[in-house]
Amino acid sequence: MSIWEKIEGHLGTPAGFFGNATHAGIKKNSDALDLALIYCASAAATAAGVFTTNLVAAAPVILSRQHLQASRGRARAVVVNSGNANACTGRAGRKTAEETTRVAAKLLGISREQVLVASTGVIGVPIKDALITHSLPSLVTGLSREKAADVTRAIMTTDTFPKACALRARIGGRTVHLAGVAKGAGMIHPRLATMLSFITTDALIGVRDLQKMLKAATDASFNRISVDGDTSTNDTVIIMASGLSGVSFTPGTPNGRQFLAGLTELCRILAQMIVRDGEGAKKFVTIEVAGARTERDADCVARAIANSPLVKTAIAGGDPNWGRILCAAGYSGARFDPSKVEIYINGLALCRKGSDAGFDEADAKEQFDKPQLTLRVNLHQGKAQATLWTCDLTHEYITINASYRT
Amino acid sequence: MSIWEKIEGHLGTPAGFFGNATHAGIKKNSDALDLALIYCASAAATAAGVFTTNLVAAAPVILSRQHLQASRGRARAVVVNSGNANACTGRAGRKTAEETTRVAAKLLGISREQVLVASTGVIGVPIKDALITHSLPSLVTGLSREKAADVTRAIMTTDTFPKACALRARIGGRTVHLAGVAKGAGMIHPRLATMLSFITTDALIGVRDLQKMLKAATDASFNRISVDGDTSTNDTVIIMASGLSGVSFTPGTPNGRQFLAGLTELCRILAQMIVRDGEGAKKFVTIEVAGARTERDADCVARAIANSPLVKTAIAGGDPNWGRILCAAGYSGARFDPSKVEIYINGLALCRKGSDAGFDEADAKEQFDKPQLTLRVNLHQGKAQATLWTCDLTHEYITINASYRT
Repeated sequence: MSIWEKIEGHLGTPAGFFGNATHAGIKKNSDALDLALIYCASAAATAAGVFTTNLVAAAPVILSRQHLQASRGRARAVVVNSGNANACTGRAGRKTAEETTRVAAKLLGISREQVLVASTGVIGVPIKDALITHSLPSLVTGLSREKAADVTRAIMTTDTFPKACALRARIGGRTVHLAGVAKGAGMIHPRLATMLSFITTDALIGVRDLQKMLKAATDASFNRISVDGDTSTNDTVIIMASGLSGVSFTPGTPNGRQFLAGLTELCRILAQMIVRDGEGAKKFVTIEVAGARTERDADCVARAIANSPLVKTAIAGGDPNWGRILCAAGYSGARFDPSKVEIYINGLALCRKGSDAGFDEADAKEQFDKPQLTLRVNLHQGKAQATLWTCDLTHEYITINASYRT
Repeated sequence: MSIWEKIEGHLGTPAGFFGNATHAGIKKNSDALDLALIYCASAAATAAGVFTTNLVAAAPVILSRQHLQASRGRARAVVVNSGNANACTGRAGRKTAEETTRVAAKLLGISREQVLVASTGVIGVPIKDALITHSLPSLVTGLSREKAADVTRAIMTTDTFPKACALRARIGGRTVHLAGVAKGAGMIHPRLATMLSFITTDALIGVRDLQKMLKAATDASFNRISVDGDTSTNDTVIIMASGLSGVSFTPGTPNGRQFLAGLTELCRILAQMIVRDGEGAKKFVTIEVAGARTERDADCVARAIANSPLVKTAIAGGDPNWGRILCAAGYSGARFDPSKVEIYINGLALCRKGSDAGFDEADAKEQFDKPQLTLRVNLHQGKAQATLWTCDLTHEYITINASYRT
């Protein structure tokens, strides 16, 4: 049983965190929020981050990695913009990211290395420094716990709803909080971080432990979702821990496991929100692979199914085309005997021993038409398993992405 | 200069080949051709095949592999049906494939192992044997050179046009022919054969040489196209050589190279037809990657770009979103320095040194709106290169695949 309970809250709920957001003019043709600041008031704060595995990493990703290392995990602020990814922008892009951290650090009275940056939006178009640096003074002046709630909307691009979550636990008479926001929608693929997410907590945790736990939590959440198989240049998950709850956590101990459980739960909730808001998505699909020889095999099969355009369009159309599921498993690279495979939709058997299970077409159609589906594939080869969350592939995905840039 | 000239012709054009096709009732709700027979009259014929790499191989793929081995490459007939893939059909499916070869062999007076089978269509639904076996007698009776032209249409499923090609060369006063048909449209991914294709030739070639040359030709053609990244359970390319032209070819000699060049040309023409007819495709895209460190790197980058839904939808929308191209290269697994990359569309520079090349938006849009595009990516790391052919991802792909089965 989880000690964590879901509460109304935002990034400013954990003790010591402040935030603010504004419209800086980076998003064209709109007055939507596009620049946000998250700040931790505790000088003892620790921070950790996981970033895209894409070789083509955006300027803010490169700089944030450097700053986390240079500050030895003592980052205390994140400046994030939406509307422009600041990726593939060469020297101009690096300068924008550097200027952002320089100006923010000066205003906040911390070192440059304690400021991290993140960006999301169109690739390949430089941002004018001034748009960001001229907005920073008022962002800093207006910092408050309540305004931290605005960060959620300021990081949205094609997202159709804001994604935030807060958890609370009482430990030894004290209260600890975890809060997070995320943005996603497209370019979502389960390799490392895969989107933007920022997490605050008032737990007391050392830098190395925080990094380890963040890695473990993202592996079990953000790395287990897929919208379209594309790994972004900007994927970033950053956590800052103020320590102000006074409750300390150590990995490998029972209370360390409790923190990891809460962090994983928070990340999973945010990750599943991203899938639910997948570009054009109408259905939320859980893919469970069981009976694999190895975890790697289970994972390969789950990912091949989650990324197959044929499986995803069949789900969009409510078509119980289990053959495509088995076919995707077949080219996944995993080893198994096709004649042993079972496939279920929401508990209804579609395929047994690699062949048609003799299901009723209307029953299957009814399951496939639901907004939430669980596809379960049992390979009957061993005991390893894997779960992945994905969505269907619809006309709207094409519409959104055919003219994203222009 | 190629010695091969393109001619009007079909599978019956090379000496010694006969064909026929009929509506056997496998395609429901239509009277379209759905069963075909290709037969080689020469007892000295040689044959070779390449098949899907999918672990979940359809019954006809498994049986054809066995028969090619058992007959030591002496196959002389192919029975192919459309409308049902006979994949994931268990024992019933194996029986259908076996019965087909047994009955056809008896009618043709050859051994069972000399008959190959191929199927395409819906997965997971058994075919009634009788539909095929009852149609075989009239198919055999009606065999003719002219009727071989009908095979082209009999193998179509979601294809919108028939795909056939014939080549002729004069060598030492003699005439040699190569003819081929193919079907494709969806579930097309560059891993081994990737669709159905049948090739006839009256060249005189040993079994091992034929197998080697077919492998080399498909690697440079059918394995270099991608529609949606899905590898089918049924991919099959079969070639039969009657030898009746009297012109013999040996690999590694100048004339062997001439045959390989012709076979590769034929396969490329058919492969490109498949891409042009990709499900919902409106644009034909050539992806050229140059300046890679290794061929593997060049190939990885080309395939990542070709399979990226974001790149493919941007092309569909005529959006010069070169950032998505660089992004796909970045997660391809290839090693390169992003700050050296150049990207061109039909010769117009979009990206230089990993950043915006300062192109005119209207110029770029004009190129992206063309029905044929060449995307050229130069990594500036070495001398290796790779070319791939693909298509855009449109609303129609979703429409076709959302309700393929039902």
